[in-house]
Amino acid sequence: MKALVIVAHGSRRSQSNDEVRELAQRLRASSKGRFAYVGCGFLELAEPSIPASIQLAIESGADQVVVLPYFLSAGRHVSEDIPAEVRIMRELHPDIDIRIAPYLGAAAGVVELLLSQVE
Amino acid sequence: MKALVIVAHGSRRSQSNDEVRELAQRLRASSKGRFAYVGCGFLELAEPSIPASIQLAIESGADQVVVLPYFLSAGRHVSEDIPAEVRIMRELHPDIDIRIAPYLGAAAGVVELLLSQVE
Repeated sequence: MKALVIVAHGSRRSQSNDEVRELAQRLRASSKGRFAYVGCGFLELAEPSIPASIQLAIESGADQVVVLPYFLSAGRHVSEDIPAEVRIMRELHPDIDIRIAPYLGAAAGVVELLLSQVE
Repeated sequence: MKALVIVAHGSRRSQSNDEVRELAQRLRASSKGRFAYVGCGFLELAEPSIPASIQLAIESGADQVVVLPYFLSAGRHVSEDIPAEVRIMRELHPDIDIRIAPYLGAAAGVVELLLSQVE
């Protein structure tokens, strides 16, 4: 059973965090059963934390968890902080396949999406 | 003549700023002549600034400049800081149509793009 956890930075503005939670809901609706569980987690300033969000996915029955960084650039958060949080959970759950997908900004389709914003 | 200026936050990591500059190049290649000029600007920590990037677009001959915020959430930068920078340039150039497109995170297609990252 596969789970998807979208991870964002987290903000002092609760509205920004709610945007991410709503996005997780839209992902859940759009993934059409590819993921039995879709959740979200935050690096800081909001709950659940990334380890807690992965834990929730595992408790839902997932044996594979895909962590998807909702970030635009490959800064320290993407290259170091998120992998460090994921490492903690891999050590706690060596039987679960926890992988990190490429961050959003790395998607080839981002150019087309940007152009669609200026139609 | 239309110009497109993608605006990002800017980072202390020069690599992140270069990612945005490369994105502007890809937008230039993909926009297939819809925009005679495509540039980028930064809110802070990198050059050119947003007013300077709009100025460059105007000097290239644009009479319409579309400012496209490369941001994922509608925080203060999107709701206040970018509009304030744009306002300065509208006052300096009342004859130029300077508009702000919806920020990237508001795009309906972001869900599909995220799902394409976990293929």
